[in-house]
Amino acid sequence: MRRSAQILAKRTLAHTRSSARVPPSKPPAFLPYTTTATAMGASDGQETNGSSLNGSDSKRSLSCVPWSSSITIDNINPKVLECEYAVRGEIVTHAERLQHKLLHNPASVPFDELIYCNIGNPQSLGQQPITFFREVAALCDYPGLLDKDETHGIFSSDSIARAESIISGIPGRATGAYSHSKGVKALRVTIAEGIQQRDSYPADPDDIFLTDGASPGVHMMMQLTLRNRKDGIMCPIPQYPLYSASIALHDGTLVPYYLDESKGWGLDMSELKSRLEAATASGINVRALVVINPGNPTGQVLSQENQQNIVQFCKDEGLILLADEVYQENIYVDNKKFTSFKKVARSMGYTEKDICLVSFHSISKGYYGECGRRGGYMEVTGFDSDVKDQIYKVASVNLCSNLSGQIMMSLIMNPPKVGDESYELYTSERDAILSSLGRRAKMLAEALNKLEGVTCNEAEGAMYLFPRIELPEGAIKSAKAAGMVPDTFYCRRLLDATGIVVVPGSGFGQVPGTWHFRITILPPEEKMPTIISKLTTFHERFLQEFQA
Amino acid sequence: MRRSAQILAKRTLAHTRSSARVPPSKPPAFLPYTTTATAMGASDGQETNGSSLNGSDSKRSLSCVPWSSSITIDNINPKVLECEYAVRGEIVTHAERLQHKLLHNPASVPFDELIYCNIGNPQSLGQQPITFFREVAALCDYPGLLDKDETHGIFSSDSIARAESIISGIPGRATGAYSHSKGVKALRVTIAEGIQQRDSYPADPDDIFLTDGASPGVHMMMQLTLRNRKDGIMCPIPQYPLYSASIALHDGTLVPYYLDESKGWGLDMSELKSRLEAATASGINVRALVVINPGNPTGQVLSQENQQNIVQFCKDEGLILLADEVYQENIYVDNKKFTSFKKVARSMGYTEKDICLVSFHSISKGYYGECGRRGGYMEVTGFDSDVKDQIYKVASVNLCSNLSGQIMMSLIMNPPKVGDESYELYTSERDAILSSLGRRAKMLAEALNKLEGVTCNEAEGAMYLFPRIELPEGAIKSAKAAGMVPDTFYCRRLLDATGIVVVPGSGFGQVPGTWHFRITILPPEEKMPTIISKLTTFHERFLQEFQA
Repeated sequence: MRRSAQILAKRTLAHTRSSARVPPSKPPAFLPYTTTATAMGASDGQETNGSSLNGSDSKRSLSCVPWSSSITIDNINPKVLECEYAVRGEIVTHAERLQHKLLHNPASVPFDELIYCNIGNPQSLGQQPITFFREVAALCDYPGLLDKDETHGIFSSDSIARAESIISGIPGRATGAYSHSKGVKALRVTIAEGIQQRDSYPADPDDIFLTDGASPGVHMMMQLTLRNRKDGIMCPIPQYPLYSASIALHDGTLVPYYLDESKGWGLDMSELKSRLEAATASGINVRALVVINPGNPTGQVLSQENQQNIVQFCKDEGLILLADEVYQENIYVDNKKFTSFKKVARSMGYTEKDICLVSFHSISKGYYGECGRRGGYMEVTGFDSDVKDQIYKVASVNLCSNLSGQIMMSLIMNPPKVGDESYELYTSERDAILSSLGRRAKMLAEALNKLEGVTCNEAEGAMYLFPRIELPEGAIKSAKAAGMVPDTFYCRRLLDATGIVVVPGSGFGQVPGTWHFRITILPPEEKMPTIISKLTTFHERFLQEFQA
Repeated sequence: MRRSAQILAKRTLAHTRSSARVPPSKPPAFLPYTTTATAMGASDGQETNGSSLNGSDSKRSLSCVPWSSSITIDNINPKVLECEYAVRGEIVTHAERLQHKLLHNPASVPFDELIYCNIGNPQSLGQQPITFFREVAALCDYPGLLDKDETHGIFSSDSIARAESIISGIPGRATGAYSHSKGVKALRVTIAEGIQQRDSYPADPDDIFLTDGASPGVHMMMQLTLRNRKDGIMCPIPQYPLYSASIALHDGTLVPYYLDESKGWGLDMSELKSRLEAATASGINVRALVVINPGNPTGQVLSQENQQNIVQFCKDEGLILLADEVYQENIYVDNKKFTSFKKVARSMGYTEKDICLVSFHSISKGYYGECGRRGGYMEVTGFDSDVKDQIYKVASVNLCSNLSGQIMMSLIMNPPKVGDESYELYTSERDAILSSLGRRAKMLAEALNKLEGVTCNEAEGAMYLFPRIELPEGAIKSAKAAGMVPDTFYCRRLLDATGIVVVPGSGFGQVPGTWHFRITILPPEEKMPTIISKLTTFHERFLQEFQA
């Protein structure tokens, strides 16, 4: 805070020069008050800070006539234009149009429902929330229920006890108040205990920043680290487009490293090293490395050896390790398990002094899938305390994340235990969801691998498959003629023919000349055969059309 | 979307050059894949885009040795350092230290509680939520309740009906799913109807973007409009520091216009004009004008004539009007009422074609004060559809705002009506809160005006008073000696002596040489006499100490 306090003092405290006791009836014609140094100072005789006036965009005419054209696509922030987010991109916009047609003129489309496999949104496809979590949520929303006799008839005893404990932990029992900017302290304590139990290494509640889903945390870290286009962030390719979008919005450079599809989307250390070297040689200051584990869109679960190598690499190169660990509960193979990067780093003997590590988590995935409640956290370790103060300040500008998401995050990190009334129901709900997801992942991957020209790694974890499709030259030509990326062309055709919404691989990045799409494993299990049959029929017809 | 699709195509689709059917066992050494043009292209023989490599910060040495120092306060994004947010700034950090001392060593501080008057956070000071709103929230959280007989004994019939109607309006009844990126359509319809009822002019659900409180909407508009430091936003001074913080984070220039304290914080049109002219002459492209009505921290309610002049000004000058209308329900004087800027513009005959107007609203203020639930909306009118598509895209990167905030926003725009079971309780809760806030505002302003050297305009609306304090020269000298802004020095002394937390005027901006603080009117009515007595005693002693 020291440094920023000095800046504030320099910028706003020229004002002490007069201490007139009566407010002037009208302030002086041109006060130098501005947040951006002395940019406004020119006309009252102060020195002008050239750098703030001579930016790169000096094409606009700067006359005294106020600029009077309205805002248009040609004069908005170009960083907004650059940002792309395929998961809700043009295919989804087209799906919404089809949804509208289906509603108003069902005969105009060749399917009777849209199947949204574009986004990891389990409850939108019928997954039911965990009862205990929702009981507690309702009691915290309306604490008056805790005083009513009827409540004991319709809520489990442990949900009542948990809600009471959560509400008591909120200052003034005020579930409608802004919390501390990092989140309610008592909830952060619970979450830190959950992390500690998971990792067998200590976690500090003051390192936890509760967020509205994982995305705002990622944005905060990008905002903190990216100064200009010469600052780079290493990201896996394929990647979840939040990263490319956030880097574009914060004006940095995405430094790609490619996952190896032929090795189950494995991560090769020599690839990381050569990419870093090349980026550095190009004048990019690489500041951080993003790892998504389990992988999105790729579904792989990293081996512990691979994780150790990544930690060592970040330590050696002085990179912040940004670990997207939102799928930590979604693992479907027996020979893999989730290990947090913090546990890996600590078990290698690396402490806070050795490596800057941020772990992102969320209430949106796992077996809970509470996407719409927008809850998440980032655990920020290894940063100087004055840097952490700056993260806290940025968090403060938005006051706090939403309390219902905060509460849900604490429940996920501390679910019912053996002996609790809800335990049995909780475990049966959880296990049913996870085992069904595992079956669906397997069923869909097998079906995709049976299609001509399609190869698909299994989903060891997460919620997606990312099959590779060989597109006939005819399809590639037709796509170009239509002004479309070839995999977008394929996905658009699939959507038009079947109502199945998937996301083109180009939205995630892929080795040039290869084509993929991402499909979630989330449709209800009983619908999978129909979806597979629709996919298969479409694919065969597509090949017939374009191989001709 | 057209333009951005082209950009995407240019940047990522060089990849069509090969369509090898087998994934290479290892991708080529340096693929040009990057979101920032061809910045990475140098080493594989492609043309390098100089502009992305030759940014302003070329001081770092750019050797092939990877940059290996860790992140420090000296190498984070300087825009983060510049951003200040006094409402949760150093005084509040100090208050937290005192809170800790009070807990662990009560004898070490001269008060028995901290009174947080720094932030408009009503429920943290004991304000109770509106029962109907929380009943509906609980039922939507745990829809299973709707099927239980006991529910009818403990929930009002209209809360049950409303929850059923809300849940039916959510696709698939999935209250845990991501919604449309603008928010659940049915909720936006309800909100648009509420706006229409308030204004007697039509509102379009597709113009509504539901947000996690008003702040994210403000950030989105800053992100959209600010290209670099030469783009300016006009803001009132004093202002709510969200605006200065957001402009700093998005690298724009704050163009201040000063409210006239001697005229009840009125807005003089000649002030607006001269500020715009001076900014334009300095090379600033002024893009938008922020108005906060009712005012924060100033509490004034604009006259309709004033509002008409502002609308005319924005129309004539081609400025986007950003109307912060979050205090629209908080009005305490009989001779003023809230009129939305959209109603003013439409009643002047101006349509979507004439003026770009964004109205921000929130669930955090009014009589509801649901700060912690983080709900809000912005109504975006007058923008080209392709610009609106860009706002939608940015909203999509964060997926959606939280559902419980969305639901609450719809309730606030459509509260119980005459004849509903909850109507009587609802109106009595609402009216008790608003009339008490009015009494508290009056009581506190009167007391402040009795203090020597303090003048304070009344709060016509909002939740704050912004008294002006004449500081003795001795205090100003002592402040400088302590390295503090004089009003911060005063507030810090007040906090240390009384436990009352207020925010220095310098955090909001003020005419140079004048000093103020912002204090909320939110402490419980019964505590007001004690607070006033503490304030008075402190102030007298402070003057005694420094007038000597």
